[in-house]
Amino acid sequence: MEFDVNDYRNVVANIEKDLRYISGIIKQKGRELLNDYSITLPQFIALQWLFDEGDMTIGELSTKMYLAFSTTTDLIDRLEKNDLVKRVRDENDRRVVRVHLLLEGKKLIDEVIKKRQVYLMELFKEYSQEDLVQIQNNLMRLHHDMR
Amino acid sequence: MEFDVNDYRNVVANIEKDLRYISGIIKQKGRELLNDYSITLPQFIALQWLFDEGDMTIGELSTKMYLAFSTTTDLIDRLEKNDLVKRVRDENDRRVVRVHLLLEGKKLIDEVIKKRQVYLMELFKEYSQEDLVQIQNNLMRLHHDMR
Repeated sequence: MEFDVNDYRNVVANIEKDLRYISGIIKQKGRELLNDYSITLPQFIALQWLFDEGDMTIGELSTKMYLAFSTTTDLIDRLEKNDLVKRVRDENDRRVVRVHLLLEGKKLIDEVIKKRQVYLMELFKEYSQEDLVQIQNNLMRLHHDMR
Repeated sequence: MEFDVNDYRNVVANIEKDLRYISGIIKQKGRELLNDYSITLPQFIALQWLFDEGDMTIGELSTKMYLAFSTTTDLIDRLEKNDLVKRVRDENDRRVVRVHLLLEGKKLIDEVIKKRQVYLMELFKEYSQEDLVQIQNNLMRLHHDMR
């Protein structure tokens, strides 16, 4: 197969465009799924980080979410008021406070993620096993390299 | 290769997670690239739709962007004030007004998309030609089926 600079540019342009549109659709789907719950998209994303990576300080969380410290503090205040997270003091260093996901928060995030998976399963109905594994591997590599 | 229900669930769970994180990174990268320009992310997304699909009514644009009509109107007002778009009356039906991308808007969107492509090219430095074509085809299919 011939593959010159223009082919390469074309492939990258296609990937850029599809990634851009897919991420728009994913964001919109995510927002629709949250309609049944009383949390916002940024609140969901905070819960998701705590779910995936465990307890975190507000500083760590604001870095992950690319949000200002004060914005993250407000967000955590609201999640704490709704009993989805709580602030916990570090046993060894009492000056350090971490945000901890509570059972209700875990249940909520688990439910929403399951719904996202059901949406994808529906989408993948006609995909072969090989295709799915290939997509999985490509996305894993992409995500890994983007971090 | 054996592939039972649990394997299938696992693959879908991995895809869901990677898609969710990749779209977060894409959004953040997009926002960073816009720092050099005096437009917001929703304004960029509006320009992008006009760039990709041509002139549209505000109604059509608000459907594409999942925004309220009034929000889209405000957004277009601001883009029009900055000479990036203009409102054009339909020649055959004067009641219909469409938003048209102006040269400055085209240049801006073209520049930002080129920067996104450069970011991806950097990311893909070590990828083989076959891998890139495979990623392109997978993302095209995914995007197509999600629409």
